[in-house]
Amino acid sequence: MHILATDHSQQILQQVRQEIAKCRLVETLSQQQAGGHKSVVQQLTHRQQLSRLEKILSVLHPADVARVMESLSPEERKFVWDAELSTRGGIILLELSDSVTKQIIQATEKDTLRQLLKQLDVDEIGYLAELLPQSVLHDRLQELTSEDKDWLTQTLQYGSGSVGAMMDQDMILIRQDELIEQVLKKLRQYKDLPPQSDKLFVIDRRGFLTGVLHWHSLVVNEPEQRVSDVMSQDYVSFHPEDSAAHAARAFERYNLVSSPIVNSRGRPIGRLTVDEVIDFVRDDISEDALNSVGLQGEEDLFASVWNSARNRWSWLLLSLLTAFAASRVIGLFEETITHFVALAALMPIVAAIGGNTGNQTTTLVIRGLALSQINDGNQSQLISKEMKLSVLNGLVWGSAVGLFAYIFYANFTLSLVIAASMIITLLIAAILGLAIPLTLQSLKRDPALGSGVLVTALTDSMGFFIFLGLATLFL
Amino acid sequence: MHILATDHSQQILQQVRQEIAKCRLVETLSQQQAGGHKSVVQQLTHRQQLSRLEKILSVLHPADVARVMESLSPEERKFVWDAELSTRGGIILLELSDSVTKQIIQATEKDTLRQLLKQLDVDEIGYLAELLPQSVLHDRLQELTSEDKDWLTQTLQYGSGSVGAMMDQDMILIRQDELIEQVLKKLRQYKDLPPQSDKLFVIDRRGFLTGVLHWHSLVVNEPEQRVSDVMSQDYVSFHPEDSAAHAARAFERYNLVSSPIVNSRGRPIGRLTVDEVIDFVRDDISEDALNSVGLQGEEDLFASVWNSARNRWSWLLLSLLTAFAASRVIGLFEETITHFVALAALMPIVAAIGGNTGNQTTTLVIRGLALSQINDGNQSQLISKEMKLSVLNGLVWGSAVGLFAYIFYANFTLSLVIAASMIITLLIAAILGLAIPLTLQSLKRDPALGSGVLVTALTDSMGFFIFLGLATLFL
Repeated sequence: MHILATDHSQQILQQVRQEIAKCRLVETLSQQQAGGHKSVVQQLTHRQQLSRLEKILSVLHPADVARVMESLSPEERKFVWDAELSTRGGIILLELSDSVTKQIIQATEKDTLRQLLKQLDVDEIGYLAELLPQSVLHDRLQELTSEDKDWLTQTLQYGSGSVGAMMDQDMILIRQDELIEQVLKKLRQYKDLPPQSDKLFVIDRRGFLTGVLHWHSLVVNEPEQRVSDVMSQDYVSFHPEDSAAHAARAFERYNLVSSPIVNSRGRPIGRLTVDEVIDFVRDDISEDALNSVGLQGEEDLFASVWNSARNRWSWLLLSLLTAFAASRVIGLFEETITHFVALAALMPIVAAIGGNTGNQTTTLVIRGLALSQINDGNQSQLISKEMKLSVLNGLVWGSAVGLFAYIFYANFTLSLVIAASMIITLLIAAILGLAIPLTLQSLKRDPALGSGVLVTALTDSMGFFIFLGLATLFL
Repeated sequence: MHILATDHSQQILQQVRQEIAKCRLVETLSQQQAGGHKSVVQQLTHRQQLSRLEKILSVLHPADVARVMESLSPEERKFVWDAELSTRGGIILLELSDSVTKQIIQATEKDTLRQLLKQLDVDEIGYLAELLPQSVLHDRLQELTSEDKDWLTQTLQYGSGSVGAMMDQDMILIRQDELIEQVLKKLRQYKDLPPQSDKLFVIDRRGFLTGVLHWHSLVVNEPEQRVSDVMSQDYVSFHPEDSAAHAARAFERYNLVSSPIVNSRGRPIGRLTVDEVIDFVRDDISEDALNSVGLQGEEDLFASVWNSARNRWSWLLLSLLTAFAASRVIGLFEETITHFVALAALMPIVAAIGGNTGNQTTTLVIRGLALSQINDGNQSQLISKEMKLSVLNGLVWGSAVGLFAYIFYANFTLSLVIAASMIITLLIAAILGLAIPLTLQSLKRDPALGSGVLVTALTDSMGFFIFLGLATLFL
C-alpha cells in the first residue's frame, strides 16, 4: 500500500485531476458526436480512460483516496467515486468528512448504496447510520444477524458526544481461570487481530471485567500460569454514557491505546481505541474554532453557494441584529454627534478595544473550562485577576487613546472623556468575558458556542453608550 | 493507582484545597507565635498536616496531580509541589502545561531541581530542556553516559515543530535473520515493555530498517520461523526533520500507534508514539484558537496580572493601531457626517457584517490549508465560489440593512447607498478573507497567525471608506 507523504500528495492529486479531465473530455466528445449514443470505440476509450484513473488510485490507502476526494470539486469527485465504488467505496465513505459524505450519499443511487454497505461491518454501519437514507439503512438492518442487530440498535441509542457512540465491538475477551497456553491457542485462531489491540480484557465466570492482560505478560510468563495470576488490575474503563470529552482527556492523560467499556453491571460491552479519540479531539476543537465565527460544523470547501450560505446565515443574522442594536444606541446621541463630529471618528476605537479584551478573557475561560481547570474553588481568584488586569489595560490603553484624541482634536476634555470611557468599557468587557461563558457552563450549555458573539455584541453597544453618554454630559 | 473520574475530580480538588488551607493556617500561626522560630510541637503539627496532604495526593496518577496543580493558585501549588517533590516531582513536571512548568521551575531552588532531574530519563530531560535553567541542565548533562549525551544533543537540534523533537528512544530492535524463539527469549529479558509498543522494528545486518513485527505474528507463528518471513513491510516511517503536523495527520489517517523514525540513510534512530501525537494535536489546534484572539500560546489561568498583561499586549497594540487607522478614515468624512448624522449611526453595521463574513471565509481557508485540502489545482474554484457567495450575501444583507435604514431615516437614497456599500464591502471582505491566508501560506508563514486581525482591520477601514465615500458622492 502506497502511503502519501506530503511531498507526494500534490503530485498524485495533480495526476488524478489530469486523468479526470481526460475522462470528462472523452465523455463530452462522445455525447456531442453521437447525440448521447456511444459507439463501441468510444465506449472502449472511455473504459480505458477510467481504468487509468483506477490504477493511480489503487496504490493509495483508502484514507488518502478520501483526502484526494475532499480536495476535488463535486463534479470531479464523482469520477474518483465511480472508480472506487465497487471495491473500496464503503471504507472510503468512512474516511470522508461528514459534509463530503453527505454530498456523496446524495449523489449515489440507493441500490448502489445498498451494495456498498455489504462491504462494511456492523460497527462501521453504525458510524454512517445518521447520514444514510432511512430505507437503505433499514434494508441493511434486515440482513444482519440478530446479535449484530442488537449491537447496532444499542449503540445508536448513545448520543454523538458519548463514549457509546465511539465504541467498537472488536474486543478479545479471555477468562481469568484460563491458562496462558489456552489464551495463546485462542489467539492463533485469529487470522488478524483487531487494530489497536494493546491488551486483552479478562472476565470472570459471570462475565464481569476483572482485569486486563498485556501482550508482554503472554510472552514473559510460563504457559502453565493462570491468567488471574499475571493479569493487571491497573486499567481505566468507561461506561457508554460517559462523555467522549471525558474519555478523551483520560486517554491523553494516561496515554491509553485501548480501554474496555462496561455496562452498569460491570460487564464489558465494547472498547474504545485511541484512533477514535484522536479523531474526536481533532473534530471537537476545530468545531469550536468554526463555531466561533458562526460556521455550523465542518463545511465542505466546495459545497454549492446555496449550501454554504445556509451554513453561515443564522450567525450573520444574529450579528446583523446586534449591529442594529448598536446602531440604535448611537442613534440616541445623534444630536451630540452633530455638535461634536469627532465623536463619530473616535467611537469605533472604544468598541474595538473593548471587544478584543473581552474576547481574550472569554477564550481563556472557555479553555480553562474545557480542561476543567476552573471550578467553584478558584473562580473568585480568576475573577479578581481579570478585573485587575482590565483596570491596568484600561489605564494603559485609555491613556494611549486619550493622547491620540488630543493630537487630532486638541481638546483636553474630549481626551479625558475617551480615556475614562476606555477604562469603564474594558472593565465591563472583562465582566462580560467572564460572566457569559461561566453562566453558559452553569446552565449546562456549551460555553464555546456563542460566547464570542455575545461578548463582542454587548461590549460594542456598551462602549458606544458609555463614550457617547459621557460626551453628552461633559462636552 | 486511583484514576480521576469527572465526578470525583471536583471532590478531590476540594479536599486538597482544604488541606492546603489548614497547612497555611498552621504556618501562619507558628510564624506569629514564635517570631519565625518554630517550637517542636509546632513543627510536628506542621509535619502532620503536610503528611495528610501527601496521603490524599499519593493515590492520584501523576497526570492528575498535575491537573490539580493547574487548578490551584501559585501559592497553593507550592504545597502540592512540596509534598510531591521528592518522590514524583520529575514526572509531574512533565505533565504540567508549559506555563505552569515555568512558574514552578522559577519557584524551585536549583539544587532541588538538580535532585529532581535524577528521577527522569534522558528522553524526559530532553522534553524539559528548554524550560530548565542552563546551569542545571548543564550539570545533569555531565552525569549522563556518553551515549545518552549524544542522543540528547542530537534531539535538541530538532525544532519544536518537528518529528525529531517528539521522538523517544524506547524502541525494540530485532534482526531479520533471528528466529521467533530468539525474539521471544529477548523479550523475556525486559521487566516491562515501553508503553505504546504495538510493534517491534526489524533491521538487517547493516542496521537498516527492513520491516516491523506485530505482536500477533509472535503468537501465531512457529518458534522456528525466521523474522524476515513473518514480518510486515507495510509500515509508515518518518524522518526526524519531518514536520510534526505531517506525522500527526499520518497517525490520524492510518490509525498508527507507534512508528519508526529513520535517519537519511534508513537506520532507525527512535520512534514516535500516539500519545505524543495526541498532545501535539491538542496543543496545535488550541494554540490556533488562542492566537486568533492574540494570546501568545497557553496562558496560566492564575498567572500574575503583569505576566498576563504582557501576554496580551502586543496584539492589543496591533488592534489599537488598526482602530486608529479606521478612525482616521472616518475623520476624512467629518464634514459629510455633520450634514448627515445618520451616517454615524449606520456605519458600524457595514463594518461589522464585513468583518464577520470576511472572518468566516478566512477560518474556512485556514482549516482547508491545515488539512491540505486547498492546492494550486482547486484554488480558482474556491475563489469563484466564495465570490459568488459574497455577492449573494451582499444582496441579502444589503437589502436588510437598506430596509433598516429606510425605517429609521425614511431616505431612499441613503438606503440605496448603504445597500450598495454592503455589497461592495462584502465582496472586498471575501477577497481579503481568501487572499490574506493564502498569501501567508505561500510566504511559508502560518496562515492562522494574524489572518483574523488583518481581515477585520482591513474590512473595517474599507467598510467605513466605501460607505462614507458613496454617501459624500450621492447624498
